[in-house]
Amino acid sequence: MSIFLNFSKYCTVVFLLLSMQLKAQKVELYNNIATETINIPSKVLNQERQAYIYVPKQDSVNPSKTFPVLYLLDGENHFHILSSYINYLSHWRIIPPMIVVGIINKDRKKDLTPTKSIINYEGKTDSGYSTSGGNEHFFQFMQTELMPYMDKNYKVGPYKIFAGHSFGGITTINCMLTHPDMFNAYIAISPSLWWDNKYILKLTESKWSKSVSLNKKFFYSTGNEGINEPNSFHTDILKLDSLMIKRAPKKLLYKYKSYPEESHMSIPIVAYYDALRFIYKGWTPPDKK
Amino acid sequence: MSIFLNFSKYCTVVFLLLSMQLKAQKVELYNNIATETINIPSKVLNQERQAYIYVPKQDSVNPSKTFPVLYLLDGENHFHILSSYINYLSHWRIIPPMIVVGIINKDRKKDLTPTKSIINYEGKTDSGYSTSGGNEHFFQFMQTELMPYMDKNYKVGPYKIFAGHSFGGITTINCMLTHPDMFNAYIAISPSLWWDNKYILKLTESKWSKSVSLNKKFFYSTGNEGINEPNSFHTDILKLDSLMIKRAPKKLLYKYKSYPEESHMSIPIVAYYDALRFIYKGWTPPDKK
Repeated sequence: MSIFLNFSKYCTVVFLLLSMQLKAQKVELYNNIATETINIPSKVLNQERQAYIYVPKQDSVNPSKTFPVLYLLDGENHFHILSSYINYLSHWRIIPPMIVVGIINKDRKKDLTPTKSIINYEGKTDSGYSTSGGNEHFFQFMQTELMPYMDKNYKVGPYKIFAGHSFGGITTINCMLTHPDMFNAYIAISPSLWWDNKYILKLTESKWSKSVSLNKKFFYSTGNEGINEPNSFHTDILKLDSLMIKRAPKKLLYKYKSYPEESHMSIPIVAYYDALRFIYKGWTPPDKK
Repeated sequence: MSIFLNFSKYCTVVFLLLSMQLKAQKVELYNNIATETINIPSKVLNQERQAYIYVPKQDSVNPSKTFPVLYLLDGENHFHILSSYINYLSHWRIIPPMIVVGIINKDRKKDLTPTKSIINYEGKTDSGYSTSGGNEHFFQFMQTELMPYMDKNYKVGPYKIFAGHSFGGITTINCMLTHPDMFNAYIAISPSLWWDNKYILKLTESKWSKSVSLNKKFFYSTGNEGINEPNSFHTDILKLDSLMIKRAPKKLLYKYKSYPEESHMSIPIVAYYDALRFIYKGWTPPDKK
């Protein structure tokens, strides 16, 4: 009981100190946008994984209403931008409200590469890539652990989007080619198509033809990478675009957009917005149909 | 003492219940971006006013380093987008870290209009505008209460930006014309130039000429308003743009950008980004100079 009382006093002191501080500074936490962090102990990856979750406000008319889910790679980098877009655009009824799952990296070069390779984008050996080639393993984590967790704990609807940038971009394309049923729409912003001797371009060529049918959406884009720099970013995406024209599956709705004024790190801001607008082009709120 | 003990017990129970809930759901609050809410009892406006504040991480090398400040109108609507842009772009050293002050509306039609008028954008009498014409009063609140509060409580540097959309857009232009020294840069996204028989266009014409000198920056833009709709949004901004060409003060650096694919409510996403890039064009991090 004395421990309980001491603990109670401690709580009270902390509470009073916090109150005094708040009053003096007239400052409180801004939390208008509900966001949460989840921790998933992954057996597949043999490590605990973390994700940021943006949850739209519950529908007041229909509390059991479900939402599309956007699975976003590099969550620590792009979650805040995507969740602010979705919060704002759905408030103004331009796109539907959505759940965002921003997956936090642990070993980015492992999870976000399709094959094992130790050659960097300058064509040089780089031991920093020694763990590469974990895409398939990572997709298994998403399919058997992360997605079931989301289905169980959130109001998850059937429509799912997979979004990535750079290594995240080749990861979403690899997923679309090897697990086309996992998502309804795929976004690849400035994908690192140079990876492993243009592995993804070769895979696209071998997997796809006009006889394949795929009722999905695909948005891909590049900034100024490779335009004034000695790398193949720009010519690679043009190859992907010409491959799409020649071999894109039937029913696949796709869009390529080039942003010559954006750099590799600024392009996500403009391209993720355009990707959302592309995926939800013509969308109207249910009560306006 | 018994009240104290009861209160302590209450605190403990709340604390334990919260802990249990967090553990069960494996969910905690996402708060990677430090944001705060301030409450200012305004004597000028005779009401308490609220603002959201985004504060960049303190500079580890130089803890007393000050930051530019972006004063943003319609804070409840655009704060999250602007703070996510600034957090992201400054992390990648594309623009400097900045403080954002998102001012929350109480009577938007009062504070964000330059004159008293009860005529709406369709030219009809609308008693909803009976409190309009509060711009000057609002500028006094900013100048004598909000800005001194920020100067006192945050690491505020000399460079200040004033940003607004729609009524907020005519407010920033009015401020630039009547209090040109209050800010270093002004942003007007889809300004409601139709207000009060095009008051702002007339004021621009009367205040400015090529003999005036103003070492500031000004970004203005429109979406598709008035292109397929029977209102004067688009022709008004073209009038402003031709006024700028004829009468813009010396040294004023200005840019007009049109977004025909964006609506009145989607344009802030793309235009605020371009405005920040315009204001900080050519900016390089201090350690790269």
